[in-house]
Amino acid sequence: MVAVEILLQVFIIFVAAKVAGEVAMRLGVPVVVGELLVGVAIGPYALGWAGTPGAGLVAVFHDERLATEVLHGALDVLAQLGVVILLFVVGLETHLHDVLRVGGRAAAVALGGVLLPLALGYGFGLAVGETWASALFLGAALVATSVGITARVLGEMGQLRTTAARIVLGAAVIDDVLGILVLSIVAGLVQGGLSLLGVAILAAEAAGFTAFVALVGRHVIRQYDVHLERLRLPDASFAVALAVCLGLAALAGLVGLAGIIGAFLAGVIFAEARDHESLERQAHTLYDVLVPFFFVVSGMRVDPALLAQPQIAIFAGVVALLAVVGKVVGCGLASLGLDGRTIAVVAVGMVPRGEVGLVVAGIGRSAGAISDAVFAVIAIMSIVTALIVPPVLSRLLRPPKEPPGASG
Amino acid sequence: MVAVEILLQVFIIFVAAKVAGEVAMRLGVPVVVGELLVGVAIGPYALGWAGTPGAGLVAVFHDERLATEVLHGALDVLAQLGVVILLFVVGLETHLHDVLRVGGRAAAVALGGVLLPLALGYGFGLAVGETWASALFLGAALVATSVGITARVLGEMGQLRTTAARIVLGAAVIDDVLGILVLSIVAGLVQGGLSLLGVAILAAEAAGFTAFVALVGRHVIRQYDVHLERLRLPDASFAVALAVCLGLAALAGLVGLAGIIGAFLAGVIFAEARDHESLERQAHTLYDVLVPFFFVVSGMRVDPALLAQPQIAIFAGVVALLAVVGKVVGCGLASLGLDGRTIAVVAVGMVPRGEVGLVVAGIGRSAGAISDAVFAVIAIMSIVTALIVPPVLSRLLRPPKEPPGASG
Repeated sequence: MVAVEILLQVFIIFVAAKVAGEVAMRLGVPVVVGELLVGVAIGPYALGWAGTPGAGLVAVFHDERLATEVLHGALDVLAQLGVVILLFVVGLETHLHDVLRVGGRAAAVALGGVLLPLALGYGFGLAVGETWASALFLGAALVATSVGITARVLGEMGQLRTTAARIVLGAAVIDDVLGILVLSIVAGLVQGGLSLLGVAILAAEAAGFTAFVALVGRHVIRQYDVHLERLRLPDASFAVALAVCLGLAALAGLVGLAGIIGAFLAGVIFAEARDHESLERQAHTLYDVLVPFFFVVSGMRVDPALLAQPQIAIFAGVVALLAVVGKVVGCGLASLGLDGRTIAVVAVGMVPRGEVGLVVAGIGRSAGAISDAVFAVIAIMSIVTALIVPPVLSRLLRPPKEPPGASG
Repeated sequence: MVAVEILLQVFIIFVAAKVAGEVAMRLGVPVVVGELLVGVAIGPYALGWAGTPGAGLVAVFHDERLATEVLHGALDVLAQLGVVILLFVVGLETHLHDVLRVGGRAAAVALGGVLLPLALGYGFGLAVGETWASALFLGAALVATSVGITARVLGEMGQLRTTAARIVLGAAVIDDVLGILVLSIVAGLVQGGLSLLGVAILAAEAAGFTAFVALVGRHVIRQYDVHLERLRLPDASFAVALAVCLGLAALAGLVGLAGIIGAFLAGVIFAEARDHESLERQAHTLYDVLVPFFFVVSGMRVDPALLAQPQIAIFAGVVALLAVVGKVVGCGLASLGLDGRTIAVVAVGMVPRGEVGLVVAGIGRSAGAISDAVFAVIAIMSIVTALIVPPVLSRLLRPPKEPPGASG
């Protein structure tokens, strides 16, 4: 078995992810932070337990570079399937009618929280001398809120039915869609060169792809269960959903968009299926197995020595600050007119970044648009924003000075 | 995204597997046959839809060989995880107390059906001029019965509670264990050279590993749920089981045994866990996604042109014949003393080969012990034995001439 060494690294990554995730959860820290940090720790720049081929693998291929590329290819396909499943599950949990119902306020908050961080990231990138492509990826990585962290804090404090919670959750969904569209446009621009026409074409393509898939998908899905029964395929529905997910991801990639937009749309489509609960359960099993590979492999690409360089540490600090300021100001402004406490909860609740930002960074890195240093900076930014929000949010959410039982 | 082309091939393989499996099922043919044949069809020797890098991937790596190896590495890790999950699920469905309860007759049938095919395959391999290593792998590939096919036919005809069914199902489990032990010994011998001492050491190692894992595992698992509760890890049990499975597979590989023996033993251990039903459900989700990669990738390695060579076609025909004769005679002799119909059902019911034989062939191929031709021969043998059994068995099982309701 050539694969013993690769199997061993798969085992190491899986166990490291699960242990780190569990420790993170008990410390009240997001699981993704644990997985990223453990990836840095076991990766080639630190302990070297994963990501570099051992003597056995090199001997099999008689060539160190070949062995390294094969190992990376093997770990990458797991990480890529992980991110496809991640976005599929995000899509499955996105119900279009909920998005449409939360209305104008959430849309405004989402838009404010997308435009300002994008502009700040892009402007700062250019200001410090990054290429336009790198600056664009930096901006795009600041766009999407990772709402899981906020949702958990809100849930733990019994605040999920407040106005603030509804706005944050609604805005975060719209924000995901916008974040993925921005990424698609940015990825296309970097391949094709920066031009106004290019932006327009890619925006139209991304919007067209989304609208086409959503419309056709919704039409098809309405008759989905009927078809499954007619075709005598009751057990096949998860296989069908996964096939559509992989197919749309590959299709999106082939037409020059980010593959994850296809996976996300597949999730959105199947969220309308009658058996979506069983789909979600099975998708979560796959999620638990594959998604950690994405975050650990992302962490493995971060060279902690980079952060010992004062220049890069300062860069990371400023980007994290811009990430916070961008959401707090952008979403805060869009919430004006609500009461002060709601504005504060919305503004802080939208701050955490996570999965989608890392996906953006990973795509920018494999496209050669961003350097290892910028990749590390984006990873640090995700970790910092994910870490600071829970304590601040808990403080903001402490029971107000109303008599007990007065809240509905 | 470097991985778009790899993602596309993953999609193609997954869809091809699911469509072929569904078609096979409706034709009354085992799913594994459909998956193997579709693998041959889409593989590099036929349509070339998967298994060869396209222009895009070659351009990324600036080197065709590198692109090919990375693609193979990526598809291989999915196939290897598939086979690990396959054996884990086989283990999960193997209850040690059932094995111990079916008693001497099933053990005798299993042993007869292991020794004779092994001897026939080894002898025939040597007779036609194969190396001892190739002949041993050929023999080992004939050992394990794929009982799923027989179980389905028995189930469809309402015969699962007959003596014949109990013997076949019990013997097939013992047979799996023996098959995996034989494989471990053969794989070790091929690495270390053929010697009586070597056989003894490897047999002791395999038996020791099995006994150690089974004893320690059973001890640990008895307190497993208690520990999970004490550690507040209720949701983690599938992650724990999968980690143990990957870990034992890697460990078995590292000590020179076949990795799948570790995965199988992990399954046997967790079959005793209190929450094994939930484990089985989650393992089956992973099974449905990953196992098809193993069979399709196995099929992709078969060059159909080889079978147009009369020499190899005859070789395949003889091996298939020996596979049938070995089990019919070996298991038939071990059933002497039972009534004639039971002997016939047991002898025919043990004939199908499948997963484990292909695993043996795959390991032999990646160890360089068997040629592409022998690999193809083994694949053909699996397909032939799996195809011929259901019609013969149905005929044997037609309601006997007793008055209705007389059977218990």
